[in-house]
Amino acid sequence: MSAALASTAVRTAQKACKHWPHKSPALTKVLDNRSAFKLDPKHEQPMGTWTSEEIRDAVDEHVMLTWAPGKARHNVPIITHGEGVYVFDDKGKKYLDWTSQAVCSNIGYTVPDNVVEGTVRQMKKLPFIYGGLGITEVRARLASLVSDILPGDLTGMVFPSSGSEANEAAIMCARRYTGKFKVINWYRSYHGGTTNSQQATGDFRRWFGGDNVPGFVKAFAPYPLFWDYAGDNEAERTQMALNMLEEQILNEGPDTIALIQFESVIGGGGVIMPPPGYMQGVRAMCDKYDILMHCDEVMVGFGRTGKLFGFQNYEGVIPDIVTAAKGITSAILPLSMMACRKHIMDGFEDKPLGWGSTYQAHPVAMACAYENLKYMIKEDILGHVQELEPVFEDCMRTLTETHPSIKQYRHVGMFGCFDAHLPNGENPQLQHTAVHEAFVKYRMAYTENGLIGLLRAPHLHVAPPLTITKDELLDGFDRQDRALYVLDEGLGYQEMRGVCL
Amino acid sequence: MSAALASTAVRTAQKACKHWPHKSPALTKVLDNRSAFKLDPKHEQPMGTWTSEEIRDAVDEHVMLTWAPGKARHNVPIITHGEGVYVFDDKGKKYLDWTSQAVCSNIGYTVPDNVVEGTVRQMKKLPFIYGGLGITEVRARLASLVSDILPGDLTGMVFPSSGSEANEAAIMCARRYTGKFKVINWYRSYHGGTTNSQQATGDFRRWFGGDNVPGFVKAFAPYPLFWDYAGDNEAERTQMALNMLEEQILNEGPDTIALIQFESVIGGGGVIMPPPGYMQGVRAMCDKYDILMHCDEVMVGFGRTGKLFGFQNYEGVIPDIVTAAKGITSAILPLSMMACRKHIMDGFEDKPLGWGSTYQAHPVAMACAYENLKYMIKEDILGHVQELEPVFEDCMRTLTETHPSIKQYRHVGMFGCFDAHLPNGENPQLQHTAVHEAFVKYRMAYTENGLIGLLRAPHLHVAPPLTITKDELLDGFDRQDRALYVLDEGLGYQEMRGVCL
Repeated sequence: MSAALASTAVRTAQKACKHWPHKSPALTKVLDNRSAFKLDPKHEQPMGTWTSEEIRDAVDEHVMLTWAPGKARHNVPIITHGEGVYVFDDKGKKYLDWTSQAVCSNIGYTVPDNVVEGTVRQMKKLPFIYGGLGITEVRARLASLVSDILPGDLTGMVFPSSGSEANEAAIMCARRYTGKFKVINWYRSYHGGTTNSQQATGDFRRWFGGDNVPGFVKAFAPYPLFWDYAGDNEAERTQMALNMLEEQILNEGPDTIALIQFESVIGGGGVIMPPPGYMQGVRAMCDKYDILMHCDEVMVGFGRTGKLFGFQNYEGVIPDIVTAAKGITSAILPLSMMACRKHIMDGFEDKPLGWGSTYQAHPVAMACAYENLKYMIKEDILGHVQELEPVFEDCMRTLTETHPSIKQYRHVGMFGCFDAHLPNGENPQLQHTAVHEAFVKYRMAYTENGLIGLLRAPHLHVAPPLTITKDELLDGFDRQDRALYVLDEGLGYQEMRGVCL
Repeated sequence: MSAALASTAVRTAQKACKHWPHKSPALTKVLDNRSAFKLDPKHEQPMGTWTSEEIRDAVDEHVMLTWAPGKARHNVPIITHGEGVYVFDDKGKKYLDWTSQAVCSNIGYTVPDNVVEGTVRQMKKLPFIYGGLGITEVRARLASLVSDILPGDLTGMVFPSSGSEANEAAIMCARRYTGKFKVINWYRSYHGGTTNSQQATGDFRRWFGGDNVPGFVKAFAPYPLFWDYAGDNEAERTQMALNMLEEQILNEGPDTIALIQFESVIGGGGVIMPPPGYMQGVRAMCDKYDILMHCDEVMVGFGRTGKLFGFQNYEGVIPDIVTAAKGITSAILPLSMMACRKHIMDGFEDKPLGWGSTYQAHPVAMACAYENLKYMIKEDILGHVQELEPVFEDCMRTLTETHPSIKQYRHVGMFGCFDAHLPNGENPQLQHTAVHEAFVKYRMAYTENGLIGLLRAPHLHVAPPLTITKDELLDGFDRQDRALYVLDEGLGYQEMRGVCL
C-alpha cells in the first residue's frame, strides 16, 4: 500500500461516526415484585383495638418523621382521642393542647355537629369532582363566604390542600401576573415545605433543600436578633427598617421584583409583629414600585390574632394576595386557600394560573371549611379571643416576671411567645446548633405537667385552641409555670423559687 | 484657610460614611381593611338550595382555574351529585365518568359505607394530631397495610396531602440520602404542580414556572413522538433506548445523579408503557451507578393497570421509592404517600427527611384511605379490572379500526389512550400550539353524548372508575364512538360512516 492510499484510509475512518458497540447493564438483582393483595387479619380488627405494642411495632417499622430525625418517633406519644382542648394518650394521660398542635386545631378536638354533618353530606352526595371539569355548589359558597369576610376586593381564589401549596400558587400567580421574577421574604419566616415555599422560608428548613432555587431574596424583619436599627424611639427605628427595605428593593431592582411575601405575624419564628407604621410602609413601597404584596396568613388567618386576618392589625393595609390554611378548616380536613384582588384574577382570564393540583377545590374538604367558618362566625370565636386576650397577656407577663430564664414575651390575640435567655443575656439556642439540654428537660417537664405542643427554642409559643375557656387558659399557664422552673434551672439560674416568690 | 487645611477637610468628608437622609414612601392608598365577621343570609340556606344563577354568579366573581384560562370557568358544568360511575349536572343531565375525573375517582361516586363510617369515626374521635407530636392508631394501621401490599422492603413512609407533595418528599429524600443532586425525568411525563415536582415534569406545565429550577435533567422515553431508535425489532430498539439513557447518565456524571424518577406508566402524556426489558434496564443502571429509582404511581397506583402498582408490570423490578395519591383514597379525601425501602428509612434515623407539612399523616384522611383500601381488597377491584381488560381492549381496537382519525391505541388494565392524527399522518396538536378546532368540536360531542372527562389532545384517554360494570363500559365506548365521528370530520376525513360500516 502506498503512503498516499494509507493516508486516505485514515482520513475516511476519522470522518465516520459509527457508534461504539455497547450493551447497557443487565438486571442482576432480580426481586419478586408480586403483591399479596389481601388483608392480614390484624386489619379486620375494629379500629381502636390495636394494643400499644402493636402500634409501636408498626411505628418502628414504618413511620418516618419530617422535620425531626426518624428516631424521635419512639418518643412521640400514642394519642387515642380528643375532647374539647384536650387529647389523651394510650396510658390515659390527659394533655392540654398548648399550641393547637401546629397552630391549627383552632376549635379543639370536639368537632361541631354541623361540621360533621356538612362533611358527610358532601361525601355522600358528591365526594369528588375535578376543579376543571365541574363546579360544585360548595365551591361557589365557600369562595363567596371567604370573599364576604375578607376586606376589599380580595375576591378571586383557589383552594389547594396545604399552606405550602397555597404559597406556591401565590408565587406563581405573582410572577405570571407581573411578568417579574424575584420574591422578597423575611429571615426567620416560614412559608412551607414544597420547593418554592421552602425557598421563600427564612428559617433553617430552607437549608434542607440546599438553598439553591433562584428568585428569592431575604430581607431583615424590623426586629433583628443581634442588632438594631438606629433611632431614639420606635418610630425612628421603624423608619430605618423601612429605609433598609427600600434600599434593598432599589439594589435588587424594582423591575425584577414580583412579590413581597411576608407572614402577617411571623409565627414559628417567634410571634413577631412589625411595629406601627411598618406594614403601611411596605404597602406604600409595593404601590410605588408595582410590586405585589402577599400576606401569608397560613398560621394566623381566621382568628388567631383576635382579628379575622393578621393583616387587619395594620390599619389601612390590604394585600394583593392572601394565603391561609390551618384555621380555614381548624385542621379537621386538609385545605388551604390563595385569594387575590380582582384585577389580578382578571389578569388570568386568558391565561392559566400555572399552578394546579388534582385535589384543588376538593368538595369534601371545602364542605368542612364552609361549616367550620360558619361555626366560628355563629359562635363568635373572634369575640371570645378578644375577650380572653387581657387574661392571656396578664398570664404571659406574670410568667415573664416570675422566671429569670424568660427574657421577654410578645403576644397578639391568642398567640404568644416567650423568649428564653442565658444568665449572661445570650441566646441559648441558635438554629444551626444542637438542642440545648435545658430545653430537653423543659420539654419533659412540659409533658409531665400535661401540656402538648410545639417547641421552637429559644422561643416558647403559646397558642391554645381559640375555643379555650378562661379556667382552662389559667390552668395551662399554671402548668407552663411549673415547667419553666425546670428551664430556669437548666439554663443555669440559681434555684430562685424561694427568692422570687 | 490654607490650601493644606482645605485638603484635609475634603479628605475627612470623603472618608465619612454618613447615610443620605431618606424617607420611605408614605401610604397614600389607605383602604378600609375591617371585616364584617357575620353570615350573609344566603349562607344560612341549606346546602343544595342555591339556584344555578346564584352559583354561576359566585363562580363568575370568585372561581379561578389552574391549568386552564380563567374564562373557561363559564363553560364548566355545575355538578350536583354522583352515583356509581355517573355524575349529574344542574340541568339533570347524566354523565358517565370516562376518565375517573383526573384518573382518581377509582371507585366512582357512591362512597362505601365502611369509608363513610371510618372517616366519621376518626373525625369524631380525633380529627387531628400533628405528625411530630402524636401517633395515631390509624397511622400505624395504614402504614402497615400499605407496606403489606407493597412488594419487597418498601416499608418506610410519610403521608402528604397531594401527589405533588409526595414527589417533593421523594426528591428531598433521594437528595439527602445520596448526597447527590440531579434528578432525571422523562419528557412527556407529569409529576405535580409544586416547584420541584413541576420542574421534574416533562410536559408543558413545567414551562409556566419559567423552567429555571436547578437539578433536573430530561431524558427521552423509549417511545419518542417524531423519531425512533435504530433496530430491526423491539428488543434492539429497547437496547438503543437504554444505551441512550446510560450515555446520558455518563455525560451528566453518575456521581451527580441522586434519582431517576419516572412514571411507571406515563399517564397524562398518553398511557405509555416502556417495552419489555426497559424498566429492568433502568433498575440495573440504578444499581450500577448508585442512583435511586423512583416510580411515580400517583396516577396508576392502586389498581389502574390491573396490577396493584404500575411497576409490577415489570417483572423483577422494585424501585427504591414509590409515590402514590389519587387511588389511595379514590380521591374521596386528599391524601398521598411516599414510601421508600428500609435502608433509606434507616438513613434518616439521625437526620430529618427535610420535607414536611402540617397535614402530613392527617388522621381523617388516613382513615379514609385505610377503609378505601380495605374496600378495594375485599371487593377484589383488581380482579374486576383484570376480568374486564379484554373487553376494554376489544372496544379500543374496534374504535381504532372504525375511525380514521385514530392512528393507534395503547392500553393496560383499565387505562387506555387513543392517538389522533391528520389525514397526512401528522400530529394535529402539539403542546405549545393553540387547541385544534376539531378537538373543541369533539369535546362538545363527547359532552353531548353524556361523557365527562379529561382531554389532552392528540391523546384521548379512557380511564373509567375501576368499579365500572361491563354494560356501563360498553355503553361508554358507544358514546365515545359517536363523538369520534365528529373528530373524524373535524380533522378533515371524509364522511366515512357509510363507507366503513
